[in-house]
Amino acid sequence: MSEQNYMKVNNPHRLLTPGSVVLISVGDGEDDNFFPVAWNMTLRKSPPMVAILSGKRHYSYQLMDKTGEFGLNIPDRSLAAKVIKSGKVSGHDIDDKFAHTGLTKIHAGHIKAPLVQEAVARMECRISQVNDMGGSALVIAQILHSEVRQDCFSDGKWDFSQGLELIHHMGGNQFAVSNTSIQIKEGN
Amino acid sequence: MSEQNYMKVNNPHRLLTPGSVVLISVGDGEDDNFFPVAWNMTLRKSPPMVAILSGKRHYSYQLMDKTGEFGLNIPDRSLAAKVIKSGKVSGHDIDDKFAHTGLTKIHAGHIKAPLVQEAVARMECRISQVNDMGGSALVIAQILHSEVRQDCFSDGKWDFSQGLELIHHMGGNQFAVSNTSIQIKEGN
Repeated sequence: MSEQNYMKVNNPHRLLTPGSVVLISVGDGEDDNFFPVAWNMTLRKSPPMVAILSGKRHYSYQLMDKTGEFGLNIPDRSLAAKVIKSGKVSGHDIDDKFAHTGLTKIHAGHIKAPLVQEAVARMECRISQVNDMGGSALVIAQILHSEVRQDCFSDGKWDFSQGLELIHHMGGNQFAVSNTSIQIKEGN
Repeated sequence: MSEQNYMKVNNPHRLLTPGSVVLISVGDGEDDNFFPVAWNMTLRKSPPMVAILSGKRHYSYQLMDKTGEFGLNIPDRSLAAKVIKSGKVSGHDIDDKFAHTGLTKIHAGHIKAPLVQEAVARMECRISQVNDMGGSALVIAQILHSEVRQDCFSDGKWDFSQGLELIHHMGGNQFAVSNTSIQIKEGN
């Protein structure tokens, strides 16, 4: 995937709005990890903000809480098995979840947390607020930078014409797949 | 659609997790309205909770704020044009958005707000917290009751085998469509 070209995106809410699963990557420059999050939403277009839900006992949550940052990576269908695998094991129990799942970590530009090279879109986020939900936390963050693979995005939106398939978690090991779009005509 | 059968769902997060657009229906028993919300997420499985983002100047927001309740209705592809139409006009400007869009309001069991008959899934929600986000509000609610059309749900998950197509907002008048699912095998 290293030969793929990415471009900067100024409207990252367009990447998040369809509601696909994301991989949250965390790290302090020494230790790193990532985990899948189906429960995520845009909170604001400009400046862009996102909310994710995370269990507070997660290894990654502790890293995220310590650094105040995370990467947000959107996987396509080709990564679905790795997404499931990454959710089955804790960073408490393995040294390197990137190696464990066969995903590649790359450096981010604005945060210490790594990003996932194989993701079709990647964002760099700084936490601005954490709402305690008991066993979990609603983590609210500013999106400092976002980028998308050029063949997956055009006219400010996801573009399925080159074969993109997004995955939406249904529960368990199952994903709904979106790979087509419809355009509603005005006046209908 | 009135002949369709619905069944109660005890795990409404399974309806919300794939991230399709929802219609939020509001009302105080006299006045009612509804509006589309792409930015929504599950907050808790049990007791079930959901978060939605709403502009604070929306006619519906004012009704929702007054009553502390809303209905959450999940449309399928057959309703896509009505979803777009419902987002183009404000309840400030028209008397009856249900009539305007050709959707049917039905009574809920636990709240005064109506529900949308044609939706493939419907939930009754009571607001527990509102987080001010400036021009918009992050509205957090408990899901008191949820139901889904029987042909769209099996084994505790959405079921695409009978022709269900979910719609995920991409921006503008465009939706991504999910109508298939994949099951990841353990060990992959």
